[in-house]
Amino acid sequence: MHDTPSKIGETPLQLTDDGYLVWRKFLKGLNLKLDEYRILCRGIIEGVYSEPMLATIIARAYYKPLKPDEIHKLTMAFVETGDTIEFEGKYIVDKHSIGGVPGNKVSLLVVPIVAAAGLKIPKTATRSITTIGTAEKMNIFAPVDLTAEEVKEVIKKAGGCIISTRKLNLAPVDDVLINIQSKLRINPISLMVASILAKKKAMNIKYMVLDIPQGRGTKVRTMKEATMLANRFIMVSESIGINLRCAITYGEQPVGHTVGVALEAREALETLQGGRPSTSLIEKSVGLAGILFEAIGITSEGNRLAKNILESGKAYKKFREIIEAQGGNRDIKIDDIPIGTYTAEIKSNANGYVVQIDNKLIMEVARRAGAPADIGAGLIIPYKGGRYVREGDTILKIFSNNEARLDKAYRFALENMPIVIEGAVRRIVRGL
Amino acid sequence: MHDTPSKIGETPLQLTDDGYLVWRKFLKGLNLKLDEYRILCRGIIEGVYSEPMLATIIARAYYKPLKPDEIHKLTMAFVETGDTIEFEGKYIVDKHSIGGVPGNKVSLLVVPIVAAAGLKIPKTATRSITTIGTAEKMNIFAPVDLTAEEVKEVIKKAGGCIISTRKLNLAPVDDVLINIQSKLRINPISLMVASILAKKKAMNIKYMVLDIPQGRGTKVRTMKEATMLANRFIMVSESIGINLRCAITYGEQPVGHTVGVALEAREALETLQGGRPSTSLIEKSVGLAGILFEAIGITSEGNRLAKNILESGKAYKKFREIIEAQGGNRDIKIDDIPIGTYTAEIKSNANGYVVQIDNKLIMEVARRAGAPADIGAGLIIPYKGGRYVREGDTILKIFSNNEARLDKAYRFALENMPIVIEGAVRRIVRGL
Repeated sequence: MHDTPSKIGETPLQLTDDGYLVWRKFLKGLNLKLDEYRILCRGIIEGVYSEPMLATIIARAYYKPLKPDEIHKLTMAFVETGDTIEFEGKYIVDKHSIGGVPGNKVSLLVVPIVAAAGLKIPKTATRSITTIGTAEKMNIFAPVDLTAEEVKEVIKKAGGCIISTRKLNLAPVDDVLINIQSKLRINPISLMVASILAKKKAMNIKYMVLDIPQGRGTKVRTMKEATMLANRFIMVSESIGINLRCAITYGEQPVGHTVGVALEAREALETLQGGRPSTSLIEKSVGLAGILFEAIGITSEGNRLAKNILESGKAYKKFREIIEAQGGNRDIKIDDIPIGTYTAEIKSNANGYVVQIDNKLIMEVARRAGAPADIGAGLIIPYKGGRYVREGDTILKIFSNNEARLDKAYRFALENMPIVIEGAVRRIVRGL
Repeated sequence: MHDTPSKIGETPLQLTDDGYLVWRKFLKGLNLKLDEYRILCRGIIEGVYSEPMLATIIARAYYKPLKPDEIHKLTMAFVETGDTIEFEGKYIVDKHSIGGVPGNKVSLLVVPIVAAAGLKIPKTATRSITTIGTAEKMNIFAPVDLTAEEVKEVIKKAGGCIISTRKLNLAPVDDVLINIQSKLRINPISLMVASILAKKKAMNIKYMVLDIPQGRGTKVRTMKEATMLANRFIMVSESIGINLRCAITYGEQPVGHTVGVALEAREALETLQGGRPSTSLIEKSVGLAGILFEAIGITSEGNRLAKNILESGKAYKKFREIIEAQGGNRDIKIDDIPIGTYTAEIKSNANGYVVQIDNKLIMEVARRAGAPADIGAGLIIPYKGGRYVREGDTILKIFSNNEARLDKAYRFALENMPIVIEGAVRRIVRGL
């Protein structure tokens, strides 16, 4: 024990308990055994490790990424720290996104489309206090913090749900790590893979489609990185018995035309009802649902089947069933969803095409307007990339329930111009 | 600003203040400018960074060591966070050890030897709550928490001192980082170099000898690592105007025959007085002092000069002057220094040579006996490596002021045998 080799830069190892030794071994980048990952995870849950020690666990994964077999073991150890839920039936499926793109309300469409096709899709989302999360959007329509018993009941009734993981105790060790990661704003791939897959494994998901938004302003910039990440997810999925397909999607601008909890809920509802369709939102939703249909083998033309289900109104009907099963008001109308009472508009100062919509700036404007805490805060982006706008057209509409915040968001947007019109003057810098 | 490239594994960068951006840049392993290190250091001092963020600073240095020019800038930024002290005279010298070897009380000998030769040696040591530190040992003889004015006065009077850094505000940013490092028990080289050199630079040290203990059971295991580390220290020293010589020393067993605050103070005093000499302690002390003498050029036979000063009693006389100047009792006698009232002895169960003394186990025995908090706790090791012992000879004597702790230390020593006698049975493992 005292003969463990030390290296320069490390204080010689002290004789102490397993939790310390395992942490140390992980830190050094050595390949742990499953039992050692169990000790590590139990230690994390039990508060054996200080916050700085937890931060070094994140840093280890950041600087020395875990190999697939290590992620496999870590994922299994993650699962073991919490509860698991078993659903009846063969086709228990799910859809997940690694995130990073504003306005990504596709789960609100994918879940009813998939459930309407007769599959069971118990979609879980982690509650987020910093981003505009799926659970928050669904919460506009119905309660989302369900217990395991309630989830099973909803799936039995409606075939689908969109719920938070709050009461499910799925891989709780992950929540501790996620907390530190969000403080540090570092989210190493290996931990991301373990985190997502452990929660799905705990829900006994058998088939899954994973959305990997790619491009400037997302988490994954190049196609090469996206492919690498997809392979990593697939390798680990296979090893834990989840049949996974990854969809690398275009992520350089928001999905649909809205950003913000209530605004996105409205847009999703409107799209389900067949009104004012947003191409990007519909195409992405039916694309993801279609991949699931093909994976399971119920059709060789998944995209078409998904589109039919959406356009026929079956998905909308299913969404109302899901809302009701989760305890919400199935008759909710778009105008029943309140949005920010204060608004401001930014108009184009030139004729031209929209050539860029900056995800980070868009999120920052929404944040300054009060999102996600203020569920009425957010943005409407009438023109997406490639569209032609005329001088004086509104290119950004900002909503908030707080006048001062609206003003801050408005001024920030004016100064930083998240939407770039070709030909327009972006900013004037004065000389002496 | 929003165009900073992100990589997979990182949440897209948010628009926020300089402290965050600089931390992020450091984390990525990019080469910071001096001004950016200043922002980082100021942020650390002002509490801008959470403990997990500080831990990632340590982890960055652990996984992606800083290059010499980066350490140079970091060291300068460290210095600027605190006060500096200017001494009169040309030869302001110092001796420091990177630590890791038990019983290393050589500073108590080197400082008076060097001061007796007419050089000025304002030796500082960081207060330690986990190791048996130099400041704690000197504190047996005199107060060590001096102010800048008091240090200058002591140097004027006695030419040397051994004091803590507590009231000096030297590179205080380092204290914050050291605190996290000791919690994590990670001490990356680049931070170690910056940490040591910044405090010396702040004291305006011009010449310095650095002790790098090497070998099994120390911080630096191989000669190659030690040489690499020495070169790193020398490169950075030169760049900040400190003339440094590194001494790579044998570190595989304790220095001298004692471990423990009071026991080591006793051994140092006894050696200065010329009683019961310990070869390793004397040779190491005069070796380090000699290197300083040669570096400055006052002799080409530094070792001999240092030994003369020690054997002539001049170093002892100087030590008494230093004690007095620091406000202690210059007439203190060995028996005035109280040691643990409870003792236990471990005897050899065979005839043979001492072939190994395990540093880590030795430290662990001392710790279990109560060191360093109990200043009377510690060990006497009558026979060092290579010595012949007979069955029944005492090979380890343990001291403590607490009977239960003594017993724990004794049992731990018996079970783990930190001193290995060739030919002796180390442990008997019973089968079924």
